[in-house]
Amino acid sequence: MTTAEAATVGVIGLGSMGLGMAQAMVRAGMRVTGYDVNPQAMKEFSARGGRVAAHPAAAAEDADAMVVVVVNAAQTDAVLFGASGAAAAMKRGGVIISSATMSPDDARRLAAKAAEVGLLYLDAPISGGAAKAAEGQLTVMASGSKESFVRARPVLDVVAHTVYELGADPGMGASFKIVNQLLAGVHIATACEAITFAKRLGLDIELVYKVITASAGNSWMFQDRVPHILAGDYTPRSAVDIFTKDLGIVADIGRAEKFPLPMTAIALQMFLMTAAAGMGRDDDASVARMIAQVTGLDLPSTPVAD
Amino acid sequence: MTTAEAATVGVIGLGSMGLGMAQAMVRAGMRVTGYDVNPQAMKEFSARGGRVAAHPAAAAEDADAMVVVVVNAAQTDAVLFGASGAAAAMKRGGVIISSATMSPDDARRLAAKAAEVGLLYLDAPISGGAAKAAEGQLTVMASGSKESFVRARPVLDVVAHTVYELGADPGMGASFKIVNQLLAGVHIATACEAITFAKRLGLDIELVYKVITASAGNSWMFQDRVPHILAGDYTPRSAVDIFTKDLGIVADIGRAEKFPLPMTAIALQMFLMTAAAGMGRDDDASVARMIAQVTGLDLPSTPVAD
Repeated sequence: MTTAEAATVGVIGLGSMGLGMAQAMVRAGMRVTGYDVNPQAMKEFSARGGRVAAHPAAAAEDADAMVVVVVNAAQTDAVLFGASGAAAAMKRGGVIISSATMSPDDARRLAAKAAEVGLLYLDAPISGGAAKAAEGQLTVMASGSKESFVRARPVLDVVAHTVYELGADPGMGASFKIVNQLLAGVHIATACEAITFAKRLGLDIELVYKVITASAGNSWMFQDRVPHILAGDYTPRSAVDIFTKDLGIVADIGRAEKFPLPMTAIALQMFLMTAAAGMGRDDDASVARMIAQVTGLDLPSTPVAD
Repeated sequence: MTTAEAATVGVIGLGSMGLGMAQAMVRAGMRVTGYDVNPQAMKEFSARGGRVAAHPAAAAEDADAMVVVVVNAAQTDAVLFGASGAAAAMKRGGVIISSATMSPDDARRLAAKAAEVGLLYLDAPISGGAAKAAEGQLTVMASGSKESFVRARPVLDVVAHTVYELGADPGMGASFKIVNQLLAGVHIATACEAITFAKRLGLDIELVYKVITASAGNSWMFQDRVPHILAGDYTPRSAVDIFTKDLGIVADIGRAEKFPLPMTAIALQMFLMTAAAGMGRDDDASVARMIAQVTGLDLPSTPVAD
């Protein structure tokens, strides 16, 4: 597998990120087969010209590379090594590109299982969101052997704008993603706290957005998410439940390492409150809606469709 | 007072911000008189060619504008309206440019007191740090009457790169600053939590800095403060005690408004822990040193001078 055109790739997990990556690979001329437990996701990939399979093993037939973009380590393990799992069906020497957010220990454990059956493993979490996935413009935080990078390169070239090569040890990619998610999650919760507080203080929150994005209080997430609140649009670009999951993983690692993470702990509680209020599948800026509900605040609301 | 050259200005508070602003005004050819309770600060201003006064009233003699850059509302009140206060000595119709971080209610109260004695009041908190103050490149978040903006303009032109005009109501400037400080303080505490956690996970924290500043986990404060940690240099550019104070003000307003601010509350506790550990006057990135002490982590330390 040295050029994109020659590559046979399986993609497991056709959610917004996996679907975007799969489409980018189809556009690049790769032979791509997708699988998802959700038939609706498979239908969508079919509608966009993709080939689908009935189970992970079928998606992996003769695959040089297998991209796994499911929810967590347990799902990654199951679709690779469970019944009808992909690992057994792949070409020996093929590479698993594992992109779910998981703990470094899980990444190391899965890499060892792959090695046992003669497969390469790239610990390769992704960042950038659904839109960038579809454009092939993701950031990939990857670690693994030189060989695994070489085998994965045609896929990485097609799906990513930037690939950070973080060393030979699987687990490094996962660790970097964990640190990024800690910051991203806390910053979303904080953006929601700040913008609702600004509203309570009687400020023009459009002007607050303008001033803060030009000031020392800015964050990537403040800049990206607050416009959803200003528009009253909570269509999920990335859902609350992604952060109950990811900050949950961060908090679990903190406990395992006996390392206190107070900011993370509180942000996780705010996402859990938002999910508990019935907004788990809505956009993660919904933390602001939760605060507004609790405090009786009027935020902009979605214009009602005709 | 229509041009900088013709202006007589007093500056009360010659800490790093006030000193920088005063110097910028001296460079612009203004007649500047400074006052600070700390004789050392006055000595420094003298050494840089500034004129100093024995008390606030002496600094305010014939002043068209009075810049007040002290620690909080109580100090602002005292230097303006207390014994030997500046307000009585200023030209009638002159403008008080009030730049300490304070609650919107305090800003409104001080503006009313100024009006009672025939003075204009610009609620004008600043952002940008000591280096930008010295360069005349601050951001000013200002509110007040049209007249007060007109009278303050020569000073604003000299000290600021950007002046946000946030309306006629004193209290708006203070409110915007409060929202900015909430975000800034939480982001510093979070940057310190994330980078120490990264170290605990065994990551190369220089590489973490490089990856995160290009990723969705970035914040203005992460980008600005983490280099202090990487260099092991906790010389105060802005001190821990600034944030125990400013997040304290934010938390007080939240309680007064019955508005929950969980992220703020925890960040405040982290700054308090850092101050309690003896680092209150050190750089605010010292939150990372506090975490490192508690968790037995090796962060880079300052190279020892010969």
